Amino acid sequence: MLTIAVYPGSFDPITFGHLDIAERAAKLFDELHILVVHNPAKSPRFSSEERVELVRASLSEVGIESKKITVDTLDSGLLVNYCRMVGATALVKGFRTSVDLDYELPMAQVNRDLADVETCFIPADPIHGHISSTLVKQVADLEGSVQKYVPEVVARALASSSANRKAKG
Amino acid sequence: MLTIAVYPGSFDPITFGHLDIAERAAKLFDELHILVVHNPAKSPRFSSEERVELVRASLSEVGIESKKITVDTLDSGLLVNYCRMVGATALVKGFRTSVDLDYELPMAQVNRDLADVETCFIPADPIHGHISSTLVKQVADLEGSVQKYVPEVVARALASSSANRKAKG
Amino acid sequence: MLTIAVYPGSFDPITFGHLDIAERAAKLFDELHILVVHNPAKSPRFSSEERVELVRASLSEVGIESKKITVDTLDSGLLVNYCRMVGATALVKGFRTSVDLDYELPMAQVNRDLADVETCFIPADPIHGHISSTLVKQVADLEGSVQKYVPEVVARALASSSANRKAKG
Amino acid sequence: MLTIAVYPGSFDPITFGHLDIAERAAKLFDELHILVVHNPAKSPRFSSEERVELVRASLSEVGIESKKITVDTLDSGLLVNYCRMVGATALVKGFRTSVDLDYELPMAQVNRDLADVETCFIPADPIHGHISSTLVKQVADLEGSVQKYVPEVVARALASSSANRKAKG
Amino acid sequence: MLTIAVYPGSFDPITFGHLDIAERAAKLFDELHILVVHNPAKSPRFSSEERVELVRASLSEVGIESKKITVDTLDSGLLVNYCRMVGATALVKGFRTSVDLDYELPMAQVNRDLADVETCFIPADPIHGHISSTLVKQVADLEGSVQKYVPEVVARALASSSANRKAKG
Amino acid sequence: MLTIAVYPGSFDPITFGHLDIAERAAKLFDELHILVVHNPAKSPRFSSEERVELVRASLSEVGIESKKITVDTLDSGLLVNYCRMVGATALVKGFRTSVDLDYELPMAQVNRDLADVETCFIPADPIHGHISSTLVKQVADLEGSVQKYVPEVVARALASSSANRKAKG
Repeated sequence: MLTIAVYPGSFDPITFGHLDIAERAAKLFDELHILVVHNPAKSPRFSSEERVELVRASLSEVGIESKKITVDTLDSGLLVNYCRMVGATALVKGFRTSVDLDYELPMAQVNRDLADVETCFIPADPIHGHISSTLVKQVADLEGSVQKYVPEVVARALASSSANRKAKG
Repeated sequence: MLTIAVYPGSFDPITFGHLDIAERAAKLFDELHILVVHNPAKSPRFSSEERVELVRASLSEVGIESKKITVDTLDSGLLVNYCRMVGATALVKGFRTSVDLDYELPMAQVNRDLADVETCFIPADPIHGHISSTLVKQVADLEGSVQKYVPEVVARALASSSANRKAKG
Repeated sequence: MLTIAVYPGSFDPITFGHLDIAERAAKLFDELHILVVHNPAKSPRFSSEERVELVRASLSEVGIESKKITVDTLDSGLLVNYCRMVGATALVKGFRTSVDLDYELPMAQVNRDLADVETCFIPADPIHGHISSTLVKQVADLEGSVQKYVPEVVARALASSSANRKAKG
Repeated sequence: MLTIAVYPGSFDPITFGHLDIAERAAKLFDELHILVVHNPAKSPRFSSEERVELVRASLSEVGIESKKITVDTLDSGLLVNYCRMVGATALVKGFRTSVDLDYELPMAQVNRDLADVETCFIPADPIHGHISSTLVKQVADLEGSVQKYVPEVVARALASSSANRKAKG
Repeated sequence: MLTIAVYPGSFDPITFGHLDIAERAAKLFDELHILVVHNPAKSPRFSSEERVELVRASLSEVGIESKKITVDTLDSGLLVNYCRMVGATALVKGFRTSVDLDYELPMAQVNRDLADVETCFIPADPIHGHISSTLVKQVADLEGSVQKYVPEVVARALASSSANRKAKG
Repeated sequence: MLTIAVYPGSFDPITFGHLDIAERAAKLFDELHILVVHNPAKSPRFSSEERVELVRASLSEVGIESKKITVDTLDSGLLVNYCRMVGATALVKGFRTSVDLDYELPMAQVNRDLADVETCFIPADPIHGHISSTLVKQVADLEGSVQKYVPEVVARALASSSANRKAKG
């Protein structure tokens, strides 16, 4: 049996917390798809293409072995349709606190209802536990250092995006 | 790669909630070890041997395919030593509420610290979400029906154990 | 004494979870008012009138005895003013997780402060526990099946609303 | 329809928090039974008879109208059997935090499974929100003042019980 | 050693809950700065200047000794930069429920990462525990009484702001 | 004004998590008393004297400047009496998760009721967030390594205590 899992998220942008989950999940399954999901209800900082590019560059920068890992995007349609397409039986979600879970659990149940796809929740490593993409963007916009939270390639992208936003007012 | 996971617990006794997690976890890995763990701080209702026997009889009663599933006991030593011995890289834990997690997360982190074993948390199916071994024992001791919560073989064992306790006073 | 309770909500749209709470609450009181509340801070999917109509059609479709149940709307003013007007001493709120409660508890206290109206929190049935109007709208917009979550009349209204939104882009 | 509710608890001893819930619940139903439940797994500070006596004396001391309120004990058997016997369709539980609920919710579901008895959760008034029987006993044993937490009759019973425990060592 | 703490918040507007935290925190440190923080992601009801004015008028109205207390604004830049500027080693945050904390904890950790500033979390007094600026604005907009939640000067400002919003539609 | 705080706990035994809180709290106040509290309801692994000794040896081993820090025991009576005796206006409590808080908040309120002593909650550093004395004792008893969680002097005391317990059976 080939065990295939999908790790979905906004990754707007990817952080050390996400990279840690990806690396640990990749050890548990034969294949892992990191899936950049477009959420029509949010206006992301980076486009889907930029986010995929930052994921790939980050995996390379931190040296995560990528033979088992595929990076892809889902711009429309149900997540479970993507799972069916690639033959995945599991979704992987990292979580930091029980608040994260209270939002994720209903979605996990819906994904079981719709397509029998299971969700494995993997706890964030404590040293990354407080990092979120939202917090990282806030700190970058206030010109604080984000080097403890994201790879250099992401830090540079954030700095340039924050500067653009400031210029536009 | 052969993916091997261990599903540890007291299973005192096993419930439909545990069986559901076992069946779902078995689909995600190549091998699943259901491990009856002895907790020296608790006095269990059933002995380790009885609990293993009830797990096996329950798997058979509800028709869970058992080629991938091994049932075993851990009477002393660290859980991660057992994982190393059988080549498991993952622990599986079901959870019902975030309270379950607040107790399990520190242990999950210790298991990573000690032996790089990951813990996958799988949410209980809502229809089993309120069942716990403790609650089932309470209901059985008060002579309430437990047929919605445990297989028949477990219900019979509980009835006979409750009668014994009552006789002893 | 005639015991009268109000079950307020957005019901945008009503789900099997809401219907279950309504049916169970109706057994505990002499009269139950299902109250569609307009929240000026949100832009609902369905108008107040459409939501009332879907509540009524759903009660009828699932066969909930409606002699004790009144369906009404509150388009402005305080909820407790409505309670006073109809002689209600209790509000009924269903809840799925403790997160739901953390948001509802302050409002419950305010309603006691303002008008001595009590709030009874009734736990969602586990089989409906993960359903929310928000999740149902998301699934419908992605063309997933919502038949496990809402009555047929609501499923049809959602399908037509999702198609309209897609057409408008 | 006569609406009858049961408010079960250890009441070891009753506090101002319990009395507040009882008074508020009594307004919502035609009859309220305050039920002192014996928990075989705990060794209570006061006997069932003493606890009933303290409940009655406290209701009288704080002036809660008692025509609608019955005080009773349940020394064995299922809570739902008592509900059936007195014709109650609802249980009332006060709660202070979501932790209280995480323990009560499974029991509420079991009571629905066994006998279709609903549980209404009523939030503690914030000014009583931190009071528990356990905390009150701890403070009394350390000779702190408990007058903000319990009626005088209970404070006297606690003082005499704490003195006895100290004498016994 | 002079111990200096900063109590940051939106204070849009200040409530009795905030004033209670400020008064209690002022006893624990030599100096307390109440800091009205501008959050670019939100559109506040009152301008920074109005909020500072309401804080000052409220401190005076409720009679909190103000020699140790400074009221200031932070319109841009990192909170920790302000702390460094005034020599503060601690931030003070009030909290009502664990949900408040789940949002505040990551920010507390970031503030330690960036500048070794500690955050002291002080629990809200239960009698103010359900008050939030958001809830107060909602009640005022629906013409409910807010006198239990805010000083008179704030109640008047809210009434005039609610009337303006209504006039504008 | 001299600001004095008390950091109470069982410290059975002290961990790196406790030491981190002590070091950080010592920066916020002029004096810090680490107070080993005897809990009559628990049978501790180490005596009060041993625990005080391990606290002192640990402070010295990890190099925490101890001029501001006093280590003491409270074997009977209320914690607030100790605070009054040493002139402390604040208690310091570390916390790891919101579950910790749900147990600590009622006690914090009681301490305010009894003696106007405030409690400052300081979040555990994420890298120590999963460590508890209980978990450390469990790991030591199963002969797992505890060097990541406690100073060497504590690890040696635990090893010798675990060996003793094993010898006694």
